[in-house]
Amino acid sequence: MNDQPPIISLLTDFGLEDEYVGVMKGVIFTGCPQARIVDICHSIPAQNIARAASMLTTSYTYFPPGTVHLTVVDPGVGTARHILVVEADGHLFIAPDNGVLTPLLRSPSLSACHRLKMPSAEKSSATFHGRDIMAPAAAQLAAGAAPATLGDEVAPADCLEIEAAAAVVTPDGVTGEVSAIDHFGNIATTISTEHIAAMGAKVLVIIGDTTLERIHRTYGEVAEKAPLALIDSRGFLEIAVNRGDAAAILDCQVGDRVRLLHRSKR
Amino acid sequence: MNDQPPIISLLTDFGLEDEYVGVMKGVIFTGCPQARIVDICHSIPAQNIARAASMLTTSYTYFPPGTVHLTVVDPGVGTARHILVVEADGHLFIAPDNGVLTPLLRSPSLSACHRLKMPSAEKSSATFHGRDIMAPAAAQLAAGAAPATLGDEVAPADCLEIEAAAAVVTPDGVTGEVSAIDHFGNIATTISTEHIAAMGAKVLVIIGDTTLERIHRTYGEVAEKAPLALIDSRGFLEIAVNRGDAAAILDCQVGDRVRLLHRSKR
Amino acid sequence: MNDQPPIISLLTDFGLEDEYVGVMKGVIFTGCPQARIVDICHSIPAQNIARAASMLTTSYTYFPPGTVHLTVVDPGVGTARHILVVEADGHLFIAPDNGVLTPLLRSPSLSACHRLKMPSAEKSSATFHGRDIMAPAAAQLAAGAAPATLGDEVAPADCLEIEAAAAVVTPDGVTGEVSAIDHFGNIATTISTEHIAAMGAKVLVIIGDTTLERIHRTYGEVAEKAPLALIDSRGFLEIAVNRGDAAAILDCQVGDRVRLLHRSKR
Repeated sequence: MNDQPPIISLLTDFGLEDEYVGVMKGVIFTGCPQARIVDICHSIPAQNIARAASMLTTSYTYFPPGTVHLTVVDPGVGTARHILVVEADGHLFIAPDNGVLTPLLRSPSLSACHRLKMPSAEKSSATFHGRDIMAPAAAQLAAGAAPATLGDEVAPADCLEIEAAAAVVTPDGVTGEVSAIDHFGNIATTISTEHIAAMGAKVLVIIGDTTLERIHRTYGEVAEKAPLALIDSRGFLEIAVNRGDAAAILDCQVGDRVRLLHRSKR
Repeated sequence: MNDQPPIISLLTDFGLEDEYVGVMKGVIFTGCPQARIVDICHSIPAQNIARAASMLTTSYTYFPPGTVHLTVVDPGVGTARHILVVEADGHLFIAPDNGVLTPLLRSPSLSACHRLKMPSAEKSSATFHGRDIMAPAAAQLAAGAAPATLGDEVAPADCLEIEAAAAVVTPDGVTGEVSAIDHFGNIATTISTEHIAAMGAKVLVIIGDTTLERIHRTYGEVAEKAPLALIDSRGFLEIAVNRGDAAAILDCQVGDRVRLLHRSKR
Repeated sequence: MNDQPPIISLLTDFGLEDEYVGVMKGVIFTGCPQARIVDICHSIPAQNIARAASMLTTSYTYFPPGTVHLTVVDPGVGTARHILVVEADGHLFIAPDNGVLTPLLRSPSLSACHRLKMPSAEKSSATFHGRDIMAPAAAQLAAGAAPATLGDEVAPADCLEIEAAAAVVTPDGVTGEVSAIDHFGNIATTISTEHIAAMGAKVLVIIGDTTLERIHRTYGEVAEKAPLALIDSRGFLEIAVNRGDAAAILDCQVGDRVRLLHRSKR
């Protein structure tokens, strides 16, 4: 052991009402007693692969290089779907081959991709590969095993990818959608900092019946309970209400359309 | 210290809205700074001793031998009820003497059972023995104290036991009940793998108005939103809906009857 | 490294639906790989500074001296508000200068107070200083940095304080209010052990339409589903229902009036 204990992050749709997350941690500590385990989130909506892919992408860079990121959103558990170990950007990722690793598979920083050797059926349940296959593999990686010892290399192009909701540049601006609503009711969108920079300073943000006349820097720049547009901490356009729940106040859902327009094109 | 840091698991009905779990962890780290603490679950329904007993039994085996499992579901806190330290199956268990350790007390692997010496009243609140008595004891055990130094031995037969909901073999099959509904809406039952194996392959599963004609291996073997029966990751009969919430779709509650019938006896 | 790994506690209003808590932990482990991180609670109602101040005060004393307590309830994020590092009672506290540290700022045990040097705007988002400024500072402190190296000393009197809800002594007793309702439905009040001790044994507790004729020691002293008054594990008057949800049964909200009267003054 050196002074940097290995770190394993967990991202699942398991919720916290059951023992599922806890037993995965028991399995990890059985295989790698020195690990530090960090919960990224266990509240991904059930089977929502796209949401997990997005959250993983915006989270992993805040962990030290070498972190093993275990993502278990696995509606195909027990079927013929593979399990992947991806090395990208100095981090390691384990997840079902169902598209949840799409942003890493497409990353220029990808350095290798392996398919996990599957244990015989008696050694695993058919419905909880997070506990029976992926957690032990994460522990092995955290303990120093090379990915190549856990399975055969596979071309990224042979892995499943999904399309993420994206924003589209139009003649009068950018059209995106609501990608997530957070605990505070803040509304995240698919419109990125790059889209905004390309538009210049004179913009309007339109969501439902609400038009916002500029992009602010932070919540406290508008009156309490007033809506505002700003750049969120992930680098995307956010619509919020200062000290209020924007999604409730603006009656907004994931998937709703959001538009960024040149102010002259109103 | 050797290279295997001690592990303490926590299972409570405290929820996560308050500071109760956090302060127990502060107390544990005060007594055993090297501990690794794992949350099994804090969402046991309030005062539901039977649910905690069941979850503990299906969880502890996934932790390394020597783990200290602290279970605090304690409606009798501050009354004359005892607190137990049970050694079984190579693990250590601390919990109120209220039946929550029944499966361990009955286990052939039980090797010793002690009643915790209670501190004087000034040294403990009357309402939070998890923080004031059990967490310090868990830390002492994790730091290497022998259970015999924390209290007097007691015969398992002198400890409180509860009866768990069970399945009953009938002339035409097995009658069990819904034991739990998980975060995904999957329906766990009291009908075990052994019950199912004894029935052979030609079976029907009946829950409410729904009859399922076979037992599948995993969710993806049926169409999306179709119900199915399968063996869950704990070794019990489960009724689920592929990529759906079975409990909501089948309008099913904990305690509902579930039957496994020979197909010829339909 | 000595044998006592540094401990960092986290208290926020972030909830657990998003990746916010997880990425803060990634940042902390990046800066201090040896840290132990403990969640006190992430369910503070959004922007509720007073509730966080109260929970921090009743929690931190259960952690070992030297613990770094990071509290992020930060409605003014990105505005001109400062971030404080307070040393008091042998612990270290980091939080926005918005009143959340009021009890520590007023504590006779306060030994020093510093304002965190703010990074340049490019090095931090405007909306997530927990991740970009406070978590790195917490990691530095946990790794052994002296607070004076992170910013300039400031007089506690120059820091923002808030008034907490309190109880008032009246001619016929004490009038307080409901300060919090916990996961079990137990009703916490602002009436302290000291208030109760000063009143003597013959008291009535009045909340809404309910009058309780004495103060019990613990829940199990009354019949199941009966209401009772007792001293909670924090040292304040609590109204509870044995194995029941007092707040629901008594239809009680935070802020409701609670009175402690001399029994003769009824």
